[in-house]
Amino acid sequence: MDARALLRDKAARTEAAMRAYADAWNAPEPLGDAVRYSLFAGGKRLRPALALGACEIVCGDDAPAMPAACALEMIHTYSLIHDDLPAMDDDALRRGQPTCHVKFGEATAILAGDALLTMAFDALADTGSMEAVREVARAAGIAGMVGGQQMDLSAEGKALGIDGLQAIHRAKTGALIRCAVRVGAMLGGATPEALAALTAYGEHIGLAFQIADDVLDVAGDEAAIGKPVGSDAKSDKSTYPALLGLDRSRELAQETVDAALEALSAFGPEADAFRALARYIVEREH
Amino acid sequence: MDARALLRDKAARTEAAMRAYADAWNAPEPLGDAVRYSLFAGGKRLRPALALGACEIVCGDDAPAMPAACALEMIHTYSLIHDDLPAMDDDALRRGQPTCHVKFGEATAILAGDALLTMAFDALADTGSMEAVREVARAAGIAGMVGGQQMDLSAEGKALGIDGLQAIHRAKTGALIRCAVRVGAMLGGATPEALAALTAYGEHIGLAFQIADDVLDVAGDEAAIGKPVGSDAKSDKSTYPALLGLDRSRELAQETVDAALEALSAFGPEADAFRALARYIVEREH
Repeated sequence: MDARALLRDKAARTEAAMRAYADAWNAPEPLGDAVRYSLFAGGKRLRPALALGACEIVCGDDAPAMPAACALEMIHTYSLIHDDLPAMDDDALRRGQPTCHVKFGEATAILAGDALLTMAFDALADTGSMEAVREVARAAGIAGMVGGQQMDLSAEGKALGIDGLQAIHRAKTGALIRCAVRVGAMLGGATPEALAALTAYGEHIGLAFQIADDVLDVAGDEAAIGKPVGSDAKSDKSTYPALLGLDRSRELAQETVDAALEALSAFGPEADAFRALARYIVEREH
Repeated sequence: MDARALLRDKAARTEAAMRAYADAWNAPEPLGDAVRYSLFAGGKRLRPALALGACEIVCGDDAPAMPAACALEMIHTYSLIHDDLPAMDDDALRRGQPTCHVKFGEATAILAGDALLTMAFDALADTGSMEAVREVARAAGIAGMVGGQQMDLSAEGKALGIDGLQAIHRAKTGALIRCAVRVGAMLGGATPEALAALTAYGEHIGLAFQIADDVLDVAGDEAAIGKPVGSDAKSDKSTYPALLGLDRSRELAQETVDAALEALSAFGPEADAFRALARYIVEREH
């Protein structure tokens, strides 16, 4: 099972579904342009792949999770637009292209983020599952992703321990990744046991993803990730390599992936795609 | 029926319910402080009053609409926080107090808005109605409130006709006011006829409210509304008095209130509170 092929397939289908949503939005310009610019700027589409993959594991079909997959990517995209703003991380480039506020101005970028977050819940309504609406609202909300961004901002320039760093990541990026797996599983009709196992998988790969990102930021090739290498270190942010060293960080990423694989032990070949995805997270180069 | 007493009663109960939501949010600081600062800064709580009132008209009880009433006020509050940002209207005062970004900084204000918008959908999930989730997402979204804010920004410094002005207001403020009435009615189990009548009421008072606001901005007393009189005119925004003159604007507000009252003609005394509210909109002084 090739993780890249899996991601490519789920990404292509998610993008087609998101295109259908965006085409129906009737947005005033330049807001519609700004939203499409950021939503269709590429990216791994990891959260959709997790939602669709989890649904497929439990019911053999990923279609019930497609509206949620689109919603999760809209929410991820809004968070990138707002995080890049001058008042936040002040990033001019994202995946090698001008960020939304550089291209469309700050006001429209704020509104593009607001619009994507709002329309994500319109898409979620298409799941017909109030459980999905609630799960996503909490994961993206004040004790989840948004709270994690605040914790990250508050921690800048402060010496963090490994526990503090993990608490930030658990909220800022972990909550939505975990949620993607859970919502996909729920929409596939997962048993409580399958939901618990997939939730554990989601928690482990969320953490592994962040450690691997930090390692890539230090060790990666600037061109491959599209932003200056070491940019997190320069802005005084705590990272795994800064706290644990590069070798121990790589080890921890591998241990976390092993724990993710262990969480899938009750599943058969239907979970092979998720096994490949977990391995891919620490093996990828961008 | 006293509209002020009605607003006061619904506002007090909505604030108690919002307090219970906020107490359960487990927000990192200063994000929790920022959210509470803006959410409990007063205000008429017009949208909750409309949602609760519509529900009460159709079923004699406003309790089924309370989660939606809270959600609508969270969304209204988020929109004020983001509209006040330096990149948007750049307002330092709101209801006579420092705006959220002046008090907590721009980054936390952006996140406070994001958090309120997200948690509104968690509250909406408590209605158990996917129709309510969808209705609010669309009214607040890219073809509704957020789109209206973009239209308003794009129109700054341009000469607008009355149709252009109304199109902006219909999206920017009208959509959420109309939605408040509709969602309340839906949650009360309105018949299609009652829903259509209340929708028309909501559209008319949304428009009347905006005309009256523009009139107050020209004619009102600075202390009473808490922002400099004429601030819209100064920033080159089109207003009803600028386009139609003050007298014709007052007349149009009254005609629009009359249309709102006409929309209620099939209801009996159970709609007296809404009749009083419509009259209050043009009679209020702040």
